[in-house]
Amino acid sequence: MDYFSSDFKLGILGGGQLGKMLLYETRKYDIFTRVMDPGEDAPCRIACNEFVKGDLMDFDAVYRFGKKVDVLTFEIENVNVSALERLEKEGVKVYPSPATLKTIQNKAKQKLFYVDHNIPTAPFTRFAYTSEILTSLKNESIRFPFVWKSAQFGYDGRGVKVIRTYSDLDDLPNVECITEEMIPFKNELAVIVCRSTEGQVTTYPVVEMEFHPTANQVEYVVCPARIDAKVAEKAQLVALRVSEAYKHVGLLAVEMFQTQNNDILVNEVAPRPHNSGHYSIEASYTNQFEQHLRAILGLPLGSTTSKVGGIMVNLTGEEGYTGKVKYRNMEDIMKLDGVTPHIYGKKETRPFRKMGHVTIVNKDIDKAREIAEKVKNTIKVVS
Amino acid sequence: MDYFSSDFKLGILGGGQLGKMLLYETRKYDIFTRVMDPGEDAPCRIACNEFVKGDLMDFDAVYRFGKKVDVLTFEIENVNVSALERLEKEGVKVYPSPATLKTIQNKAKQKLFYVDHNIPTAPFTRFAYTSEILTSLKNESIRFPFVWKSAQFGYDGRGVKVIRTYSDLDDLPNVECITEEMIPFKNELAVIVCRSTEGQVTTYPVVEMEFHPTANQVEYVVCPARIDAKVAEKAQLVALRVSEAYKHVGLLAVEMFQTQNNDILVNEVAPRPHNSGHYSIEASYTNQFEQHLRAILGLPLGSTTSKVGGIMVNLTGEEGYTGKVKYRNMEDIMKLDGVTPHIYGKKETRPFRKMGHVTIVNKDIDKAREIAEKVKNTIKVVS
Repeated sequence: MDYFSSDFKLGILGGGQLGKMLLYETRKYDIFTRVMDPGEDAPCRIACNEFVKGDLMDFDAVYRFGKKVDVLTFEIENVNVSALERLEKEGVKVYPSPATLKTIQNKAKQKLFYVDHNIPTAPFTRFAYTSEILTSLKNESIRFPFVWKSAQFGYDGRGVKVIRTYSDLDDLPNVECITEEMIPFKNELAVIVCRSTEGQVTTYPVVEMEFHPTANQVEYVVCPARIDAKVAEKAQLVALRVSEAYKHVGLLAVEMFQTQNNDILVNEVAPRPHNSGHYSIEASYTNQFEQHLRAILGLPLGSTTSKVGGIMVNLTGEEGYTGKVKYRNMEDIMKLDGVTPHIYGKKETRPFRKMGHVTIVNKDIDKAREIAEKVKNTIKVVS
Repeated sequence: MDYFSSDFKLGILGGGQLGKMLLYETRKYDIFTRVMDPGEDAPCRIACNEFVKGDLMDFDAVYRFGKKVDVLTFEIENVNVSALERLEKEGVKVYPSPATLKTIQNKAKQKLFYVDHNIPTAPFTRFAYTSEILTSLKNESIRFPFVWKSAQFGYDGRGVKVIRTYSDLDDLPNVECITEEMIPFKNELAVIVCRSTEGQVTTYPVVEMEFHPTANQVEYVVCPARIDAKVAEKAQLVALRVSEAYKHVGLLAVEMFQTQNNDILVNEVAPRPHNSGHYSIEASYTNQFEQHLRAILGLPLGSTTSKVGGIMVNLTGEEGYTGKVKYRNMEDIMKLDGVTPHIYGKKETRPFRKMGHVTIVNKDIDKAREIAEKVKNTIKVVS
């Protein structure tokens, strides 16, 4: 199959920052792309060959879009799976497959999947409705504190909440959900596994994630994780087992907990380019977006090793600012060594909205971490 | 000045591969761009915010285009300078300046500029018309062999020819030109200097260029150049002197000869992102396109050091093939370590046309050179 400067068409569902960064790679290879997103000025609007405004959860919109491409992928899980299944039946190559997506989209199903495949994960209880949690609390089958997760459409901290008292339950939506035991973990780790249509598999190094205390968003991603080599190896093996179980095509980001006694528990997965892999644009021989593209097109996968240490800082909207975005002190961070800002192109900021990220690369990871701290404390996303 | 996700407008004259790679950076920063190019499907057409089809040598077209931007730059020297001068007078920031461009556009003027500034360059003679060369040959003021260069619009080997006999002169255009003594050189080297509107100056490492024997196009660019440290230092200093003399803003690529007795002679310069700097996308902390952008916007310049060794192989159309392009054996080169193909997106190939390039990065530059050789011998641009 000719992909380069040819008539081949790649479809991408979702036109956000992940799609935008994927488009850098399709442009590099001169691969024709069609993108669908509901947003009039989605970050992907520019740099794709054709942009279609459409509802990603609407069967007809997704189906009509998919019929006009040779390979279909997505940058967000919240898409109409029935349409993907229909397209797959009708011969459109959909990667990752609707089957994979279905299991991952629903967090309750995802947890059951781990149990079925003997993949270590935090103990949990499944509820058809949030209101049923009260009964389980009363008969003490679950205890405070615990983590509440809505089964559907959890994203960027929405749909996840730590519950310490009855009152914390009040403002939760009454939906299908799970409750998870709070794991007293040493570290949150992630490994991105990539699997091509040809069955070739590569894993990226283990990264270490530092979360924002209140917003439940990643603040720093550090590659390589500053952990014991044995623990890193264990995390890699667990990630590979998860990947093997899903038999996905393309990227699978596996988020894990390192417990106090160095066990690895799978937290959740994402079948797409992932925030924990953004550092790879500057640090890796092959970045995650190019790797995903290679994988779904059946091209040879590239090297996932790092040229240098990399740290990623998320740029999120400051609390107390909503409206037309301004990036304060950009010039100050650009003076620092090995600093690359990525501005996603969202015109409006709001508290904790992901507006961009900054990558800090350095041969010395501790030096990179120092600079990352400076970046974090200097740049402000305001309005 | 706010550049990021703001109303600021950057204008780029020329929509070829250099502009295309510059647009990766404007997208990364979410900077609004307008591009003008005569080609209906120029590589820049996608990924800029506004595309204008227009003749770059036409005063009105360039003037009208320039009036609608805050900062104007170009990716090709062959643009209407009078229009740039008018725009500059009327307050549009034009980088590099029309004054710089004027001296560089005309190779005869360029050579005289070096003489005026005591910058070492190959001995040359200037002719108003090619036909006048015959007289100088007869009265032996010049001798075979020599290099003929048209004063205007030399690009990609067009406008340059080695002259060994009278008959070599036959098919040359009768235009303003220079003849240059053939320099028996050890190496062709290049140094890219960057100078910001704030006067900050950085230089990239010295690279070594290997030319195609007949097509007079670069085949390999090797960074760092495998030469004596003293010679490299000398090349850096000469490049800085050239940059200091031009007082340009943005990138200045300085091509030089290393003579048999290790003198450095300036061959020619280009005031824009340059083929000899493409390796920097994968190998450098800050690639040349991002650096140019930082420079013309007055942002702090980034580090020009390399993460790893880098080699660039030009992808040019095979002899004997003209028409709809096909890239043969792409998958084979993508199997090799640290190989990144860049496909410019030109739909039609013809002999020696620049269709793309491939970067090979490796911690060991000799290993990279081996792989580059494989790449060169494997991939074929055909129709």
